[in-house]
Amino acid sequence: MAYELYYWDGLQGRGEFVRLALEEAGAEYIDRARQPDGTSTMMRLMRETKGAMRPFAPPFLKDGKVIVSQVANILFYLGPKLGLAPKDEALRHAVNALQLTIADLVAEAHDTHHPISGGLYYEDQKDAAKARSSAFIAERIPKYLGHFAEILQHGEGWLAGGALSYADLSLFQVIEGLNYAFPRAMKGFATDYPALATLRDAVRERPNIARYLGSDRRIPFNESGIFRHYPELDQDAP
Amino acid sequence: MAYELYYWDGLQGRGEFVRLALEEAGAEYIDRARQPDGTSTMMRLMRETKGAMRPFAPPFLKDGKVIVSQVANILFYLGPKLGLAPKDEALRHAVNALQLTIADLVAEAHDTHHPISGGLYYEDQKDAAKARSSAFIAERIPKYLGHFAEILQHGEGWLAGGALSYADLSLFQVIEGLNYAFPRAMKGFATDYPALATLRDAVRERPNIARYLGSDRRIPFNESGIFRHYPELDQDAP
Repeated sequence: MAYELYYWDGLQGRGEFVRLALEEAGAEYIDRARQPDGTSTMMRLMRETKGAMRPFAPPFLKDGKVIVSQVANILFYLGPKLGLAPKDEALRHAVNALQLTIADLVAEAHDTHHPISGGLYYEDQKDAAKARSSAFIAERIPKYLGHFAEILQHGEGWLAGGALSYADLSLFQVIEGLNYAFPRAMKGFATDYPALATLRDAVRERPNIARYLGSDRRIPFNESGIFRHYPELDQDAP
Repeated sequence: MAYELYYWDGLQGRGEFVRLALEEAGAEYIDRARQPDGTSTMMRLMRETKGAMRPFAPPFLKDGKVIVSQVANILFYLGPKLGLAPKDEALRHAVNALQLTIADLVAEAHDTHHPISGGLYYEDQKDAAKARSSAFIAERIPKYLGHFAEILQHGEGWLAGGALSYADLSLFQVIEGLNYAFPRAMKGFATDYPALATLRDAVRERPNIARYLGSDRRIPFNESGIFRHYPELDQDAP
């Protein structure tokens, strides 16, 4: 039975991390967001799921009767089934830790444009957004990218176990997102983090990923997603 | 061999979620933060861990040669070993999703006092902290607590599978933390969320947890942790 992915329509957002894994593996899946009734079906399913499997928020995956929510959890669930996780238990948890660190970075990237509340317009929290973005560029981007670069120094082109895992796909996505949102801050990226640039290129060139990125299934980055290009929030890295 | 838990000294912080699981299970563990050289040993171990297991930040767990970081990941790893996770794979992922939702709530609770940057003093981001706290109290606390309460309606006193899991222990900790940080906002807690109050009491009364909470191993909440009581950030729920 095909996997069903539920997420908001019209943006990459957190759903994209799951899409990239499904696309790389060539898995059969239905992207419910792309169907006419996608959002209403998603809302109904969230409401009707009772007990422990009830999602707090999209994205979530339906695999038969099983509902799995939270991106890192979906990927931990799918990883072994899609051949995108190491066999070794300890390494599998290392990949999960990397994915959770990516999730933290994604949440912080979101909060650069919404530092006060997701319930307020960007325009109503612009001053705080400028201050948060400035700190994100100065302190957080280098800390996160430096961490992944350090790990890659001891791998063989991939983050864990010498083979592609879903965390590599997610790291690719985060790098693309940061370059979209903060082109000035990321100007020195390929020079400062050559191993990350190599990984980004290697993921981009994987046949299934290249086919996906060239298709209309890949929604372009836009200002409804996590990574938004607001020029006033971007600045040169210090 | 005893588990070794590495974390900052002098605060509950994110380490507390792991401590509660180890204490409930009566597991043998060394809390490195409580040893004279705890912090320097931790920093050295982080620096010397090469490759995929390298922690981005504390807390992390050492189990022989295995290093596991990120709270939800540590608990996913420990859960089955400590008898604090369901046997069923789908339910185990449901518990992990609950834990990740708790982690999101914890990150948001942290950002109420540090909405701009963890690198700045609270005093230097107080206005933004007031605005973020106000939104957290009005929108986010009810959304999160409502979610857990809805799930408990369909359980048998616990979040998943009719038995205590590590997510219940973490939910207890979050409820205690919110009550410490935001006593005014949480005034109606027991009336508004009776099932959550029952769960909180049930965890508090478990013999191993009660013994731990009464010991000097339990550091009191304080203003170095995630949940900080700054009266100017607290307000009545709307």
